[in-house]
Amino acid sequence: MMNLQAKPVITVFEHSPDEGKGMARDMRVRWALEEVGQRYDVRPVSFASMKEAAHRSHQPFGQIPTYEDGDLILFESGAIVLHIANHHTGLLPQDADARARATSWVFAALSTIEPPIVEREVVEYCEREESWFEQRMSSVDDRLRNRLKDLSHRLGEADWLDGAFSVGDLMTIDVLRRLAGSGLLEEFANLLTYVARGEARPAFKRAFNAQLACFNAASTDCNQSPIANHKESMK
Amino acid sequence: MMNLQAKPVITVFEHSPDEGKGMARDMRVRWALEEVGQRYDVRPVSFASMKEAAHRSHQPFGQIPTYEDGDLILFESGAIVLHIANHHTGLLPQDADARARATSWVFAALSTIEPPIVEREVVEYCEREESWFEQRMSSVDDRLRNRLKDLSHRLGEADWLDGAFSVGDLMTIDVLRRLAGSGLLEEFANLLTYVARGEARPAFKRAFNAQLACFNAASTDCNQSPIANHKESMK
Repeated sequence: MMNLQAKPVITVFEHSPDEGKGMARDMRVRWALEEVGQRYDVRPVSFASMKEAAHRSHQPFGQIPTYEDGDLILFESGAIVLHIANHHTGLLPQDADARARATSWVFAALSTIEPPIVEREVVEYCEREESWFEQRMSSVDDRLRNRLKDLSHRLGEADWLDGAFSVGDLMTIDVLRRLAGSGLLEEFANLLTYVARGEARPAFKRAFNAQLACFNAASTDCNQSPIANHKESMK
Repeated sequence: MMNLQAKPVITVFEHSPDEGKGMARDMRVRWALEEVGQRYDVRPVSFASMKEAAHRSHQPFGQIPTYEDGDLILFESGAIVLHIANHHTGLLPQDADARARATSWVFAALSTIEPPIVEREVVEYCEREESWFEQRMSSVDDRLRNRLKDLSHRLGEADWLDGAFSVGDLMTIDVLRRLAGSGLLEEFANLLTYVARGEARPAFKRAFNAQLACFNAASTDCNQSPIANHKESMK
């Protein structure tokens, strides 16, 4: 039966280069949508079509994800996740000051923690054959360790960064997940537990399974969010 | 005469490494405060004290700027500027969709455009003596050119990125300013004009002059914003 209620549509990689590990930036948007219980549709885009004018009219830099809800078109995972958090309950506290503080963590994840992680991936994938590979990797890892050390120190023994779970934790955890396999996260026991705590959330699991199904299935099969299926199954 | 009205306080470098060129991240916060006409106070911090526990309790990564307004303490220039935009008029349109779109540009500036600019600075300042310097710089410049090309294409002949001047333009322009001296911006005539258009705004000029005065003067002398002085002078 067709659902006539409008749902937001997000774009994702048609064939994610991570092969279903959920490392692409649609994962954080799927997770946010699942946390707030908002159904969504998915439109897979190929690497070729991402760079064409139609997609660029939604995403000027030819990337994923985008978010479309009626006439509204957003890009940048940070802006999308913050928009979802602002328009639903579940990802931001009620208190105005606490809401603003959660936003600080969204920006910290994207502006302070993620850039050296992306840089590490550039070294790993593009500079492996260069004579300077070892030296560069060690220098990027040192910069990254400083960030992780500061984050670990701030988190301490707490479950989440600032009181209850918020969009700040969602973004920080999703950014840290990109370090899987680097061995760096293992140097900070509380960060490892922190990431596992996020990944144990039912909404995370639904989002993860949805992106995995999307990778495994033909693209037409991933056009339904698990929460939608979940809700349909309860009817 | 003491002003008893509470003003937000921002932290800035006691001695900015840019020597008054306004390249540090307090510049965008000063500019936002001047655009909305909000007086502020400044607390300069030394490189040593930035790394101590007192400052880290406000900024977990030992950076500037922070923003304090009563009990609220924020960090990350993106979160601070967005908070200012959300609580005053002048930096966000009235329409809800347009407000969300402006947020996309704030994140694009910080997550997509600024990281390769920072990476270029790392190469320039830390890898100049390395054998691979030229090759690395050329590779970072290529990544950066791709971003600038996309941005230039989207901006086209428009004055601002999405209708009227917004917090998205403020952040994008302040990020692009960090390219001064690289020669890269000069390859995109409309981006050069775009930055100049931002720098010509009276609020930008007040903010720039304030940070320059702060660099030139003893730290106790920069504890007053120009808009405060401006308003005082009109009484």
